[in-house]
Amino acid sequence: MGKRRKGKLPIARGPNAVIVTAMRRRKTRQAADSTHSWSVLRHPFEPQSIFSQDRVEAIHQAALDVLQNLGIKVLLPEAIELFAKHGAAVSGDMLRIGSDMVEAALASAPQSFTLHAPNPARNLPVAPGQLIFTPGGGCPNVSDAIRGRRPGDLASYQDAVRLMQSFDVIHKLTPAPEPQDIPVHLRHYAMMQTQMGLGDKAVTVYGRGRQQVQECFEIIQTALGLSAAEFSDAPYCSTVINTNSPRMLDKPMAQALIDFARTGQMCIVTPFCLAGAMAPITIAGALTLQHAEALAAITLNQLAKPGAPVMYGGFGSNVDMKSGAPSFGTPEHIQMSIGSGQLARHIGLPWRSAAGAAANTNDMQATHETVMSLWGCLQANATMVIHAAGWLEGGLTFGFEKFIQDIEALQAIAHLCKPVAADAAAIGLDAIEQVVPGGHFFETDQTLNNYSTAFLEPINADLSNFGTWQKNGALTAEARATAKWQAILHDFTAPPGAQERVGRVEAMIARFTQAGGAPILE
Amino acid sequence: MGKRRKGKLPIARGPNAVIVTAMRRRKTRQAADSTHSWSVLRHPFEPQSIFSQDRVEAIHQAALDVLQNLGIKVLLPEAIELFAKHGAAVSGDMLRIGSDMVEAALASAPQSFTLHAPNPARNLPVAPGQLIFTPGGGCPNVSDAIRGRRPGDLASYQDAVRLMQSFDVIHKLTPAPEPQDIPVHLRHYAMMQTQMGLGDKAVTVYGRGRQQVQECFEIIQTALGLSAAEFSDAPYCSTVINTNSPRMLDKPMAQALIDFARTGQMCIVTPFCLAGAMAPITIAGALTLQHAEALAAITLNQLAKPGAPVMYGGFGSNVDMKSGAPSFGTPEHIQMSIGSGQLARHIGLPWRSAAGAAANTNDMQATHETVMSLWGCLQANATMVIHAAGWLEGGLTFGFEKFIQDIEALQAIAHLCKPVAADAAAIGLDAIEQVVPGGHFFETDQTLNNYSTAFLEPINADLSNFGTWQKNGALTAEARATAKWQAILHDFTAPPGAQERVGRVEAMIARFTQAGGAPILE
Repeated sequence: MGKRRKGKLPIARGPNAVIVTAMRRRKTRQAADSTHSWSVLRHPFEPQSIFSQDRVEAIHQAALDVLQNLGIKVLLPEAIELFAKHGAAVSGDMLRIGSDMVEAALASAPQSFTLHAPNPARNLPVAPGQLIFTPGGGCPNVSDAIRGRRPGDLASYQDAVRLMQSFDVIHKLTPAPEPQDIPVHLRHYAMMQTQMGLGDKAVTVYGRGRQQVQECFEIIQTALGLSAAEFSDAPYCSTVINTNSPRMLDKPMAQALIDFARTGQMCIVTPFCLAGAMAPITIAGALTLQHAEALAAITLNQLAKPGAPVMYGGFGSNVDMKSGAPSFGTPEHIQMSIGSGQLARHIGLPWRSAAGAAANTNDMQATHETVMSLWGCLQANATMVIHAAGWLEGGLTFGFEKFIQDIEALQAIAHLCKPVAADAAAIGLDAIEQVVPGGHFFETDQTLNNYSTAFLEPINADLSNFGTWQKNGALTAEARATAKWQAILHDFTAPPGAQERVGRVEAMIARFTQAGGAPILE
Repeated sequence: MGKRRKGKLPIARGPNAVIVTAMRRRKTRQAADSTHSWSVLRHPFEPQSIFSQDRVEAIHQAALDVLQNLGIKVLLPEAIELFAKHGAAVSGDMLRIGSDMVEAALASAPQSFTLHAPNPARNLPVAPGQLIFTPGGGCPNVSDAIRGRRPGDLASYQDAVRLMQSFDVIHKLTPAPEPQDIPVHLRHYAMMQTQMGLGDKAVTVYGRGRQQVQECFEIIQTALGLSAAEFSDAPYCSTVINTNSPRMLDKPMAQALIDFARTGQMCIVTPFCLAGAMAPITIAGALTLQHAEALAAITLNQLAKPGAPVMYGGFGSNVDMKSGAPSFGTPEHIQMSIGSGQLARHIGLPWRSAAGAAANTNDMQATHETVMSLWGCLQANATMVIHAAGWLEGGLTFGFEKFIQDIEALQAIAHLCKPVAADAAAIGLDAIEQVVPGGHFFETDQTLNNYSTAFLEPINADLSNFGTWQKNGALTAEARATAKWQAILHDFTAPPGAQERVGRVEAMIARFTQAGGAPILE
């Protein structure tokens, strides 16, 4: 083995110490790094395939067969009527949906649109090829190294939104952890106030019944100072539609598919097909079921209003056959993502997938699962990667340290979205000429001109050598992440305009509250 | 949000308990899983690009310019003579190498060959499109949770080889941790005895001077019962050739390039170009330097013997400009891998890249870095991914827990190499028909027929829910990995034939030792 220089490089000796000193003295970037332009990303990689094109077509046809011949159960009478009116065969709550209805829906669903944010600079193009990261959503619990694991409450939800707002690479806000200390009939007000008051990114509304949804729409419209026409002309919020796999669409989800469409707001259709449990044990079978359910939901959405903004999607993985527990970051999860991407491209719609971890704590398993599944989403060219940061225990917990560590991966991917220069200046033969054999490049003009921006600075990695690391307390990535989120929360200020926006809806929310709030549709 | 069932699934209730019981009672697979056929893998994904084809050509031309006009320093007189004899311009130890010489070398280097292992079932096809994983190599130290971090010694090296041998997804043996308790002039005997006596996979020989190399060749030839002609007719071992970037080839590396070629053994050419330190700060510049150095080394190798088995390669990443420390798993590391892959395909040779971690302990950073860089190698279609398991501190330490955790990722990737069925049986409309809306698939014929093999079983993930995990001691992935490697070492037996092979060379090694061993070429 050659004299490969590892560990301590000769950077601190000689004139190159200039750079080291400059880099070390350079005002450390804010913990929350907003020096990059990561608000809009496009996939840097070509999508990969697990199926030949004829197999994609076969799965699509099989899904149409499922809808036409086996049918789907829909629990909301209003939805059944809508389906029936357009030709579905109804038998009780079982619907058989013809492929003509599905094809009409796929024809009317837009291939691309813009999801608006309170801050227009945060508007998100939603179209195949775009890359949108959203943090872990739907978590009932919250966890951090200071306060432990506990049920989500409003204070922790507010903190989570502060963290989400603090990183450009997080493109929209999600509802996690769940503020369980607020009664469910009032919780949507608190969640809107939190998102609007602490952030300026696109917001999420839960589809928990018509009244809650309509009130949230009113809140957003008023906060942003939009007319009803302006609001319904473009999506200003989104909701995730989970089917109840297999082959069932419950009342709140069906209601949201209708109500979001009619008001021009965005639905993210997401069967949660765990192969071996709520879906067939084969990847192709689970994807067939996912596809059938997604097509049914998209059809209902487009029947309610042709042209409504809707994303195809799936969150497919497998269960551990020993315990029945959901797994994430597995090869099956990755295959489900890639196959979903092929089906999404087959029908030409933007679509969502998901990263995520089953791990119970901030350990190697947790990062393994999220990073593996994140790369699955990249191989799949998912338009939106949900649960990309902070998701532990298969979504039962939003972890603050996990959130910080996951940002490391997302920022790396965002950096990969930038083109790599290879013009004559980037190749830089003069730099190579300047350095004698066995020398170093710390002092070349090319280095001196580029050292401060050439590389992505990590946010949580400790790159010091073992001795230094030990001397500094042998902190793990988890411990460093704790310091990081604490610093962010300590320094956080709401973005410009947020307080004004939330101020505009105070009276409205007081009135709604006075009137008794809004029940969740069961 | 719909009634998404998370956490505990209904698997343990009702008749589906049959599967659970069967799965739980099923004899747990050996910790070291040899039920899969992962001995030979091919890349499942298409290679990605960071450069357009004309930029790849420009970098190739720039590298030829470097060799022709700036030259490379070669410290071994025998190598200088060989270059000079074939037309290189020599000025002291500086050589200027014409593109005709490089092109002749690229024409004679084989596109594909087989690296032989002591067990022919472990032979490795080395060709573009293959996927070979090798564990962390070159580490002076070793670390595990029981004995802590310490200098490598023979006992820990033997244990590491036992671990490497125990997983099919590890395709060859590497030298780590370094057995520092054996004097350097005798160490190569101990390393050969360890690899041959405990394993049956392809072995590594360090290029530390002619005498050591020739002795290792004799040992392998004798152990495997090969004639001299048989041995030199095909590679039975490999060595990594690190250039001393920038633009220098030291004595032992130049010697090994010559000696391995002349005996038909395999060189893995590896400039270690850390952008911003020993290489230009730009990706394109660092790759230009890497390419120039690799081409020079390949040229020397092919001058020594046209047609000798050689891999192109690079291990490129960036340094942290604050500390000068090498970084791994960064976007720059991934870009260097992808760009290297483009250059490798441009010259049509199999090639090596590397995963790896800078982290000092088994935390989220460690897994982040290795898994991110592993996916970089996959995007790049690297023929051989070195340091794919167990590499900590930028290679200064071989970690047993890290090794186990990294195997989780490698096995997942290996599983992704298998095609995914999507025939009518895999789509399985009958299974979907068998399950009522809202039901589950635990009892379908499809599930009952496939449950034991459908999914890859994790080796280190704990998928139990938080309560169960806590009740079972709240073990981290690191703690579980400790139990795992301990169990493997406890149960380990050397593969058939290993003792016989090493027995054949006992007298030879005693004789070499008696004669005073072999010094390292400085």
